[in-house]
Amino acid sequence: MHDIKPIGVIHSPYSNIEDMPIQPKGASGVKGQVLVNEAYIDGLQDLEGFSHIYLLYSFHQAARTELVVTPFMDNQPRGVFSTRSPLRPNHIGISIVRLKKIQANTLFVEDIDVLDQTPLLDIKPYMHKFDAVKASRSGWMQSSDDDIKKKRSDARFK
Amino acid sequence: MHDIKPIGVIHSPYSNIEDMPIQPKGASGVKGQVLVNEAYIDGLQDLEGFSHIYLLYSFHQAARTELVVTPFMDNQPRGVFSTRSPLRPNHIGISIVRLKKIQANTLFVEDIDVLDQTPLLDIKPYMHKFDAVKASRSGWMQSSDDDIKKKRSDARFK
Repeated sequence: MHDIKPIGVIHSPYSNIEDMPIQPKGASGVKGQVLVNEAYIDGLQDLEGFSHIYLLYSFHQAARTELVVTPFMDNQPRGVFSTRSPLRPNHIGISIVRLKKIQANTLFVEDIDVLDQTPLLDIKPYMHKFDAVKASRSGWMQSSDDDIKKKRSDARFK
Repeated sequence: MHDIKPIGVIHSPYSNIEDMPIQPKGASGVKGQVLVNEAYIDGLQDLEGFSHIYLLYSFHQAARTELVVTPFMDNQPRGVFSTRSPLRPNHIGISIVRLKKIQANTLFVEDIDVLDQTPLLDIKPYMHKFDAVKASRSGWMQSSDDDIKKKRSDARFK
């Protein structure tokens, strides 16, 4: 398998995991910058045409792996692969954020829900034709939009 | 940053990249199995409640990185981060597939668009409340659903 290394770094207003939004939906309007290593700048061509992008990154402050966790939006232990917890094997996170503009190797984004200094692994365009799921069932996850917006993280996944 | 290693393997009917669907939308009903290493079996609890899951994996047959590529759905060169090409730095792919059932450490999935023997990196639940994007703009990507369904890959990203 290919080696995986950071291709840049994500800057956000959140330097501590405590009190951070738990998902982009809870971070509406929160501004961040994605700095892509200069070696990869040509890869950013044409990206500005997309309103939303996936960021793939490493949960760098997750210090351990746990196979069963209690998610922020639930009060019962759940298998980690049925959650978005950072304590998953490989500690890879994904967030769909709004792309506002690109200047040289800096992406200005909104709705950012990651820690400052998060190592960036990849950027992909959100494509409605590929990514929109028309009807889905969300298992244990029954919280309201309002609950998700209000929820803030704590130290449980550190 | 955390080391990233396979946590399992994806089996699909596609042993060659030529003639493979280019996205889950082109692989409707195509059956695959995701074998998760037995060490992680407890992490699969509660996942069966979700109708759709993200698979994160390594494009193991991508032999090089290119920063500008001509995507399958376009006839112009584009920055690789504005595409879903396997030739991206780190060679990480994501697909949203249907989860039909789980037996022990095997996930039975549909709409699979990856090569047989693809190394699995992570599984995440698709959560409508986190992941649905209400209105988005998809840049250069203007193909119809029908074009996407019909399109098959070729050797360009090998």
